[in-house]
Amino acid sequence: MNVKFIAVGRIKDSHYAAKVDTFVTRLQRFVKVGFHEIKETRPDKEANALCAALARENGYKFVLSEEGTLYTSVQFARRIETIARDLVFVIGGPEGLHEDVKAGADEILSLSPMTFVHEMAQVFVVEQVYRAFTIMHNGKYHK
Amino acid sequence: MNVKFIAVGRIKDSHYAAKVDTFVTRLQRFVKVGFHEIKETRPDKEANALCAALARENGYKFVLSEEGTLYTSVQFARRIETIARDLVFVIGGPEGLHEDVKAGADEILSLSPMTFVHEMAQVFVVEQVYRAFTIMHNGKYHK
Repeated sequence: MNVKFIAVGRIKDSHYAAKVDTFVTRLQRFVKVGFHEIKETRPDKEANALCAALARENGYKFVLSEEGTLYTSVQFARRIETIARDLVFVIGGPEGLHEDVKAGADEILSLSPMTFVHEMAQVFVVEQVYRAFTIMHNGKYHK
Repeated sequence: MNVKFIAVGRIKDSHYAAKVDTFVTRLQRFVKVGFHEIKETRPDKEANALCAALARENGYKFVLSEEGTLYTSVQFARRIETIARDLVFVIGGPEGLHEDVKAGADEILSLSPMTFVHEMAQVFVVEQVYRAFTIMHNGKYHK
């Protein structure tokens, strides 16, 4: 199984970047992990690049947005288990996501109804995907 | 106005600690910020220490738990504005929070229905409180 994260803009903050690396390394115990960075540019150009990147993916496409579906961590693990396909997660940049990108999603996923920095969203989603795999494998990480 | 964070256990991860510091510094532009660390120990002892600490506070007490009330960032800012008192936020440790602590809350607040590491919860809540103040002051931070 493959898990790919498509994100707009590189993480500039070294602390968030370090946490993403930590959880990616842990997640790699379970699955092959890929990262695809979309260059931060004008919103319409970003949207085009994201839509093109999404169109090339065969996995199940989660697009992150605060108005999406909320799950508990256990529900999210069960959801992933049910999908049973490669997974793609799209995280927008500082300006959020264009509606065209959301239209290309299989599912809009919300980590929280609260707005938070996109760099933290990357840490959060990688951590939750890792947590989901520990739940599926009855690991000791989840509480 | 004073905002106090009461948390179980010191943040051991330097990256999360750095992010908490960043947002505390920013939050201090708006309010006086206090931190009270409760020593990580046996769950019942932690609960007693937390209950005692809460009993000494006169502010409005938010206790963080994933099953609490979910707000958007704008709703949360309006909520704080309506409360118009000193604020206290309680963040549990790795083992979560005892029911007695929740019973001492004015409100159970959820950042997300998902479970995530308590150190990240500290970053998240400090960031949201800072964001709330920028919203109340029509600052440019919130999007």
